[in-house]
Amino acid sequence: MSIGIDDLPVRDELRGKSPYGAPQLDVPVRLNTNENPYPLPEPLVERIAERVREAARDLNRYPDRDAVELRTKLAEYLTKTGKHRVGAENVWAANGSNEVIQQLLQTFGGPGRSAIGFEPSYSMHALIARGTGTGWIAGPRGEDFTIDLAAAEQAIAEQRPDVVFVTTPNNPTGNAVPAQTVLALYEAAQTAKPSMVIVDEAYVEFSHGDSLLPLIEGRPNLVVSRTMSKAFGAAGLRLGYLAAHPAVVDAVQLVRLPYHLSAITQATALAALEHTDTLLKYVEQLKCERDRLVTELRAIGYEVTESDANFVQFGRFADAQEAWRKILDRGVLVRDNGVPGWLRVSAGTPEENDAFLDAVRELKKEQST
Amino acid sequence: MSIGIDDLPVRDELRGKSPYGAPQLDVPVRLNTNENPYPLPEPLVERIAERVREAARDLNRYPDRDAVELRTKLAEYLTKTGKHRVGAENVWAANGSNEVIQQLLQTFGGPGRSAIGFEPSYSMHALIARGTGTGWIAGPRGEDFTIDLAAAEQAIAEQRPDVVFVTTPNNPTGNAVPAQTVLALYEAAQTAKPSMVIVDEAYVEFSHGDSLLPLIEGRPNLVVSRTMSKAFGAAGLRLGYLAAHPAVVDAVQLVRLPYHLSAITQATALAALEHTDTLLKYVEQLKCERDRLVTELRAIGYEVTESDANFVQFGRFADAQEAWRKILDRGVLVRDNGVPGWLRVSAGTPEENDAFLDAVRELKKEQST
Repeated sequence: MSIGIDDLPVRDELRGKSPYGAPQLDVPVRLNTNENPYPLPEPLVERIAERVREAARDLNRYPDRDAVELRTKLAEYLTKTGKHRVGAENVWAANGSNEVIQQLLQTFGGPGRSAIGFEPSYSMHALIARGTGTGWIAGPRGEDFTIDLAAAEQAIAEQRPDVVFVTTPNNPTGNAVPAQTVLALYEAAQTAKPSMVIVDEAYVEFSHGDSLLPLIEGRPNLVVSRTMSKAFGAAGLRLGYLAAHPAVVDAVQLVRLPYHLSAITQATALAALEHTDTLLKYVEQLKCERDRLVTELRAIGYEVTESDANFVQFGRFADAQEAWRKILDRGVLVRDNGVPGWLRVSAGTPEENDAFLDAVRELKKEQST
Repeated sequence: MSIGIDDLPVRDELRGKSPYGAPQLDVPVRLNTNENPYPLPEPLVERIAERVREAARDLNRYPDRDAVELRTKLAEYLTKTGKHRVGAENVWAANGSNEVIQQLLQTFGGPGRSAIGFEPSYSMHALIARGTGTGWIAGPRGEDFTIDLAAAEQAIAEQRPDVVFVTTPNNPTGNAVPAQTVLALYEAAQTAKPSMVIVDEAYVEFSHGDSLLPLIEGRPNLVVSRTMSKAFGAAGLRLGYLAAHPAVVDAVQLVRLPYHLSAITQATALAALEHTDTLLKYVEQLKCERDRLVTELRAIGYEVTESDANFVQFGRFADAQEAWRKILDRGVLVRDNGVPGWLRVSAGTPEENDAFLDAVRELKKEQST
């Protein structure tokens, strides 16, 4: 007799659930997880090996628990690119922005508290809420995938969440949220409770507009979360960070696991931050490719949501899952995020994008005949 | 007006708390965090640089979410050293055993549930319980710091915890828990609820006896947790792991953050696992030094708790904090874990241990005069 999860004393809400994660399939063109298609340049690879070698010589010791050097360099990067001066005291880092968000929910959410997100959005927000015992409120979004401010304000006033998530550019839809909308949501959230507002800017480097980083000024309950997975081409590194009032940085240290960020991770991230200028050039290329995807998809006859990210949401399909499968049959893996009628494609290299466009062009022809 | 943590909408139970962590002081001899005093051998440092360089070339991609190669190699290590055959399906890894325990409490503890530990023990168990909304029960321990089985069984029967922690060798006291005691606690825990029993073996490689790994056979509710921080001399790496029934490994994947373990961490851990034989030789040296500390401390006139770990608990002091300070004044940092009358010293290099023994010899003289 085989023993499974349900034979263990797991929490009731976990029964019958499956682990989160996109299918990892072996396919020529993988455009399903919004990875940066460009490998790190070789001089950076060498620099990582060098800094890691140095860190490994001290690996028997615990890492710098407060990651001060790394937070200082992240603050410099934010100051340089975000039109707002921040210091190490404004910055906190963890193993991926998922862990940043988990720490924020452990601090400001948790049992007896709730968080709201405007769906469809990054589905890990709801899953991390579940994992931290935080109640989840699926807030509304307009037909065009923008946040309907009146409806959102009403949801906040009625539900009085402790945490409000605003993902901008939004994932999986791709569109950015205007600063005025975020400010209005912040006001609504303060009036209702007060609550923390987490602005998830994982994709902001790909945006046509600016980061909302300057909004943290004078707003201690507003947090901007970021990642090195996308713009820095370092999804494998798992380095997320946040910028906020120093009191927020102090607060998450009450729940962070001590020495959560390894010496090796810190060394690798520091090496990548030395090569920011090169990496941001890839971002410019990807923005061009993203814009090309939008233009070409529309030319083929698809509907496309405005994108400020390194991916594009396109549709509509009577059966998105079937369309996903047909694109996969042509060797291209895109993502079905469960938004009825829509799929999401990450901007790859020009060659990968050509392969994708060929596949969806054929699909369109097939469906028109 | 300065804004602090308490001006933010943090959870009530976090108000007035301070972050966990030993003071990180710049002192000649640091014997306070049970680090391995031996730096990794240079060939291993080179191998880490090599494997990380290789991983960095693919860093734009997400890491292997399931860390299959690493879990396979960890299983081989456990099979070789633990007198019990396990496979990758029995093993799960995370960023330090703290994250392993956090995932276990998210799965089997959490809001409305409780966990028990027999104190004094590893204080992170209680803190991670708090961080995951799990109720914490401070279970009893005998005067000699062994687990008083009758009292422990009674506590389990009365409190019906969902999770039972058994730390062996125990931290900070150093003593191991006999297999029969763990088995009796397991039975008590199954009768009461059934509950998960987490056997925290962070220090087991330093033990005079064997790992309790074979106990997982036929006991799906028993988990053994381990770390590379101590025996592998890799505290800076943050690599913890568990061995259990495959259903447990499946279950924690419902709460683990996707891609929680970076490609760089996986590469570094794999390099270290290639050098197991060399690293275990350092363990043998440290065991000799640990035994020497016990003998010498007793010769000086201190009380010492039996130790199966890479540290020794010694006392008694009328004022442990004052004794800690006086040892620090002599350039040696030990740990005051808050156990009244006792301090803890990690086994360092022979030279470090000599410096420590000189310091406590002087202290003894000072206190006798």
